[in-house]
Amino acid sequence: MRTMAVIGTGLIGTSVALAVRGRGVAVYLSDRTGAAARTAAALGAGVVATPQEPVDLAVIAVPPSQVCAVLIEAQERGLARCYTDVASVKAVPERAALSRAPAPDRYIGGHPLAGRERSGPLAARAELFLDRNWVLTPSPLTSDETFDLALELVELCGAVPVVMRSQEHDAAVAVTSHVPHLMASLIAARLREGPPALSLVAGQGLRDATRIAGGDSRLWGDILRSNAPAVAGVLKDLHTDLSRLVPALDALAGSDGGDRDQGMRTLVDLLDRGISGLAGIPGTGRAASADGQRVRVGVPDRPGELARLLAAVTELGVVAEDAAVDGAAGGGSGLAARFTVPGPVAERLVTGLRADGWEAVREHDARLPLLQE
Amino acid sequence: MRTMAVIGTGLIGTSVALAVRGRGVAVYLSDRTGAAARTAAALGAGVVATPQEPVDLAVIAVPPSQVCAVLIEAQERGLARCYTDVASVKAVPERAALSRAPAPDRYIGGHPLAGRERSGPLAARAELFLDRNWVLTPSPLTSDETFDLALELVELCGAVPVVMRSQEHDAAVAVTSHVPHLMASLIAARLREGPPALSLVAGQGLRDATRIAGGDSRLWGDILRSNAPAVAGVLKDLHTDLSRLVPALDALAGSDGGDRDQGMRTLVDLLDRGISGLAGIPGTGRAASADGQRVRVGVPDRPGELARLLAAVTELGVVAEDAAVDGAAGGGSGLAARFTVPGPVAERLVTGLRADGWEAVREHDARLPLLQE
Repeated sequence: MRTMAVIGTGLIGTSVALAVRGRGVAVYLSDRTGAAARTAAALGAGVVATPQEPVDLAVIAVPPSQVCAVLIEAQERGLARCYTDVASVKAVPERAALSRAPAPDRYIGGHPLAGRERSGPLAARAELFLDRNWVLTPSPLTSDETFDLALELVELCGAVPVVMRSQEHDAAVAVTSHVPHLMASLIAARLREGPPALSLVAGQGLRDATRIAGGDSRLWGDILRSNAPAVAGVLKDLHTDLSRLVPALDALAGSDGGDRDQGMRTLVDLLDRGISGLAGIPGTGRAASADGQRVRVGVPDRPGELARLLAAVTELGVVAEDAAVDGAAGGGSGLAARFTVPGPVAERLVTGLRADGWEAVREHDARLPLLQE
Repeated sequence: MRTMAVIGTGLIGTSVALAVRGRGVAVYLSDRTGAAARTAAALGAGVVATPQEPVDLAVIAVPPSQVCAVLIEAQERGLARCYTDVASVKAVPERAALSRAPAPDRYIGGHPLAGRERSGPLAARAELFLDRNWVLTPSPLTSDETFDLALELVELCGAVPVVMRSQEHDAAVAVTSHVPHLMASLIAARLREGPPALSLVAGQGLRDATRIAGGDSRLWGDILRSNAPAVAGVLKDLHTDLSRLVPALDALAGSDGGDRDQGMRTLVDLLDRGISGLAGIPGTGRAASADGQRVRVGVPDRPGELARLLAAVTELGVVAEDAAVDGAAGGGSGLAARFTVPGPVAERLVTGLRADGWEAVREHDARLPLLQE
């Protein structure tokens, strides 16, 4: 790919432009707001100009509901050989392109899983997509050339291509992004009506849980509207879940012992299902430790020994997902510390700790002696 | 304060012990799990022993429902002169203490607003409470000496004391912590039943929104049960909000134009209320920029100039909450960049940029020339 056009120089469009510019691609920028395109250009993302001949690929970086109109307009004036977009809803643009675009075979939907709280070109970063998934949703008509150019774009941005059907994508993001956004907004909106004490007891947990609610409301309104059927479905499921949870809390607030026990079971069951659900999110500690390995280290029962061990583990560059201490096997006076670490790290940790004089074993090594006791 | 007892050496208890040990206080540790107390001692948090004479202050660091039983047991054996706890629910322990403890005047409720995803003594940090709010909830009976010792504890931990009534505290944390936790659990639980594509489109937003759901389910069950009336109230409000939102999404998924418009208004109104609710959370960008000041900088319309300005701003150690670029006033060919920064920083930013040769003004300075145009 030698030439590219970016239509819409907000956070994502400008970041794409910066990323491919860094890999030697010539980029033509445009935005319905002239200042936004000039800002992107001033950041070094490309030039604000109309290409003299069709570029290899045009990236349409506008809200979901506008993708198709922009695609039609661009294809009619022959802006590019192939086209993709970066909107976070995929079925609506695809359906519109298939029925209305002059060359639907020259379009493939795309959605890079990357973003920031801040929006606009000034928030753009060439590294925004590094190691992030970038979903591509080829339609039955999408040409091989279009698919290949989109794959090249993903590679130029340092992202990981993931291919799925547009409907599959939309059903998934309704659960992982769109409904969580609405729940965060509902929680944040409740803060407006509360007593002044609220801000005194607001901590990091609340900040994290509501952070996504800070996104631009017009853009998010557009996103949610464009995926309304899938979002409505998940929202109804959550509404049902909540309808079951309210009586459980009511029971816990009441005085009937049996009801309270039942309420507590419902509550802890939900909390446990939540914990196991987190394992499905890549990059969370629990997901990582699912295929982790346990390392056991003997700790002399003297003040400071455990602190010394934790320092040694940190020194070796190891971040333990999970650590626990209990009495050493065999009834000795020492303690045993257990660390769960990613599989490949376990060997390094054991070797490093042994070199430091610690009694460290991988848990499966330790199994036999334990069985013999 | 010279001596302290910590009952319950989990994350919070051990962190309290580490913090006050660092300030020269002698700490006696205990935990119903012997290994946990020995672990805390091995970390340098104190000694596992029964004090020979009453300590100045005992810190009860156990789940909310157990605070009162532990308080009664400790007061009966004369462990300390005064007592506090660190549970995140305050009315239940206070009510129980007032009706059942041998010396309710020697108890004051406390709740440090600090925590980590990891639990247990190994996750403890002496710095955990630094600059965090620490709520104290004196009852009508709490003695001055008890209050003073609790204030000294907060100071020793480097935290900020905040005084409120226990009911006021519980109503507030129901909104800021307990209900957000349940919503995070509901969202995370939904991930278990979804298609495999879910994990491919799960990003940082979802990780943040659900992080709190990873907390220990038995501890959280206890917390939520202990604050059930307040939690049930907020949960019902959210249920009502959701009952209004579902039809809006249904309307957006339908084909009636009027219904769609109405649904969109409901949706965007919620998103906007969420954004304004975030302003009530200290430490979020939007809260900070509420009393921020705008700085305007002229940018020559040449490639790279804006990148050079952003680098200069960063070089000055300034984090702009909000930045925007538009055409310069007066119709010139340049751009104007606007940064919103906390008030005290504005002067420093302007002076620093001018020294670097930029045309920088504080926005209120800029108002007059604009009016004259």
